[in-house]
Amino acid sequence: MEFFNVISVDEVKNILKENFSDLCINLEEVSILNCLDRILGEDIISDINVPEFNRSTVDGYAIKSSDSHGCSDSLPSFLDVAGEVNMGESIDTKIKSGQAVYVPTGGMIPEGADSVIMIEHVEKLDDITIAIHRPLFPGENVIYKGDDIKKREVILNKGKKITPQDIGVLASLGVGTVKVYKKPKFYIISTGDEIIDLDEELTLGKIRDINGYALYSLIEKLGGEIVNRVIVKDDYELLREEVDKALNTSNIILISGGSSVGTRDFTYDVINSFDGKGVLVHGVSIKPGKPTLIGEGKGKVIFGLPGHPVSSIIVFKIFVEYLVKEIIGINKEINKTKAIMDYNIHSSPGKETYQMVSLDERDGKLYAVPNFGKSGLITLLSKSCGYVVIKSEEEGLYKGQEVDMYFI
Amino acid sequence: MEFFNVISVDEVKNILKENFSDLCINLEEVSILNCLDRILGEDIISDINVPEFNRSTVDGYAIKSSDSHGCSDSLPSFLDVAGEVNMGESIDTKIKSGQAVYVPTGGMIPEGADSVIMIEHVEKLDDITIAIHRPLFPGENVIYKGDDIKKREVILNKGKKITPQDIGVLASLGVGTVKVYKKPKFYIISTGDEIIDLDEELTLGKIRDINGYALYSLIEKLGGEIVNRVIVKDDYELLREEVDKALNTSNIILISGGSSVGTRDFTYDVINSFDGKGVLVHGVSIKPGKPTLIGEGKGKVIFGLPGHPVSSIIVFKIFVEYLVKEIIGINKEINKTKAIMDYNIHSSPGKETYQMVSLDERDGKLYAVPNFGKSGLITLLSKSCGYVVIKSEEEGLYKGQEVDMYFI
Repeated sequence: MEFFNVISVDEVKNILKENFSDLCINLEEVSILNCLDRILGEDIISDINVPEFNRSTVDGYAIKSSDSHGCSDSLPSFLDVAGEVNMGESIDTKIKSGQAVYVPTGGMIPEGADSVIMIEHVEKLDDITIAIHRPLFPGENVIYKGDDIKKREVILNKGKKITPQDIGVLASLGVGTVKVYKKPKFYIISTGDEIIDLDEELTLGKIRDINGYALYSLIEKLGGEIVNRVIVKDDYELLREEVDKALNTSNIILISGGSSVGTRDFTYDVINSFDGKGVLVHGVSIKPGKPTLIGEGKGKVIFGLPGHPVSSIIVFKIFVEYLVKEIIGINKEINKTKAIMDYNIHSSPGKETYQMVSLDERDGKLYAVPNFGKSGLITLLSKSCGYVVIKSEEEGLYKGQEVDMYFI
Repeated sequence: MEFFNVISVDEVKNILKENFSDLCINLEEVSILNCLDRILGEDIISDINVPEFNRSTVDGYAIKSSDSHGCSDSLPSFLDVAGEVNMGESIDTKIKSGQAVYVPTGGMIPEGADSVIMIEHVEKLDDITIAIHRPLFPGENVIYKGDDIKKREVILNKGKKITPQDIGVLASLGVGTVKVYKKPKFYIISTGDEIIDLDEELTLGKIRDINGYALYSLIEKLGGEIVNRVIVKDDYELLREEVDKALNTSNIILISGGSSVGTRDFTYDVINSFDGKGVLVHGVSIKPGKPTLIGEGKGKVIFGLPGHPVSSIIVFKIFVEYLVKEIIGINKEINKTKAIMDYNIHSSPGKETYQMVSLDERDGKLYAVPNFGKSGLITLLSKSCGYVVIKSEEEGLYKGQEVDMYFI
């Protein structure tokens, strides 16, 4: 086994980009009722104008604006009511000078009219005559055909994570199904003789498989599919067998535990035992997460994540999420908030440091409160909602400083 | 039909709290692999200590710290190696003065030892003797039994939205299933003669059911279950029939469209036609969203949302989400970010104004960029990721001002 050849976060990202950009993630077609939070695999182009007709934004009378020019409280214009538009119906009447047609909000404005006077500003003299007291400008209270969207305009871009608003947009365009990226397939392997699953008896010296479960839900949140989640003892042959199964069924394999320098760490050798480029990254200058392994086998990507749960969550967030977003080409989305550091935290120079924090709101300000892992892991996990980053050239973060807090 | 009796956002929230706190949402038991983003319906109490044994945080030798006191480079302490702890195994050996036992990171520390010296600081003289050159304090490199979690401690609180970290915590405690709140049941009704579904032909004057689809995915995102989504023509009897079905099958009924003052608005009368308190809220001093209706029938809550999609999204976010969180008792979660206003926006005094915005990151700062609805609805929806609020006593928000941006 070789010793660590530690590289920077940016170097690792470049290696991921260079080696795995063509990791195959196909498209599938889904109903817009099943596409929330999926990643759009096509540009959505409108094949209609929205609106398809000139439309009123108020309840009122559609008129020629020129008929209102010069009118005032003392000098009203009188107009003939030539009809009424019903919601959801089109109208053939063409408005001539001196005429008005009643139009409800959202209703179609008859040809010839270029403005709508609000019903509140209209005096109804009898069933067929109205008086108006103020001038309208052309286009007043009107949304013109295509004002919102022009035919053949790109409305939503490939790579966008689909929101409820987007689903409203798709519905408005009459789009019932969309092409989205298939969920990348993950295989989760926890290694270690001490690791037991939930249905096993906890005896002294054993610990539960925390990583398997935390990674499972991180993958779910990222939009991935979990092919399998297993625990493997510290044994080269057993691990190799399981990774082989994983390479044949999944796109991304996560092995947690077994990536630090030690006698029972077989992950490195297992990665190198398959057809492919083998280990590409062995050690990253981050804290926590230094003993991270990344390799390629049979065209798939294998991550060796640290055994410590916080470290493995951090490495997942930095590299696994980056990889998935990079291959699929997910558009930038902002999943962080500005917050004020509530304590000083120091870091070792030359490393990127990731500090778990919780958010606290006081007097209308958001504070990032660091949770230190000293007293224990579970407390640290259950309290934190995200993390802050101290760049390798920085010495630390200072109380009162504004920082980016990234949500987990 | 009565005219609006407009009340404030806080008054509406009080009415919701007073009338619907007992809206019945039961619990169900689910596997921790299916509980991401669900709301915990019980306190999680640890029935174990974590760790269950004194544990090493490093690879090294467990010793009595008193054996190291006074030692230095020139005056090492010599210790007998009395054994080795294997990962995942317990050890019966009791360490006496002068003895050391090898322990891997995470391994169990034998009785009698109170510290672990890192392997890097140990000189191996032969197979059974080591020399150490620096003193250790009691507890150095040790996590004591129960340090992280004490037996019978509350680890996760009822009402918490379950995160991947929480799932790691549950796994570590050996908790395989948890009680979560059942998904509240929603029934979505879009009203209007002009509203057509995706499979209908778009003829002049008709528009697609945007609200039905946008609300569907907002409910999904909120963690609700959709019992049905239907479109109903502007007809009192048809609407009453559908609402009756909804009251018999759902907890929360959303009727969109038909809540402004107009000849064809039957929502108000329909709500009042069932056994119950009838209409409780008719008009709120917000913009957009003024014509909001809220009522009670057969013990269920009925919302009359505005027909305009942006307004109905805003009202959903302010009141429907509030109601669900209030009934269930969801713990505070922060789903907003601080951002800097990129434009001045003015508001009408006496109203709470909700302005849709997108986020833009420039030079490490986050800007909230207001999207105005003037040029059209779809563009407004597809661009916005959240909203900012202008309180009723404020005149507006100013360019450069720091604001809270709430994610949709």
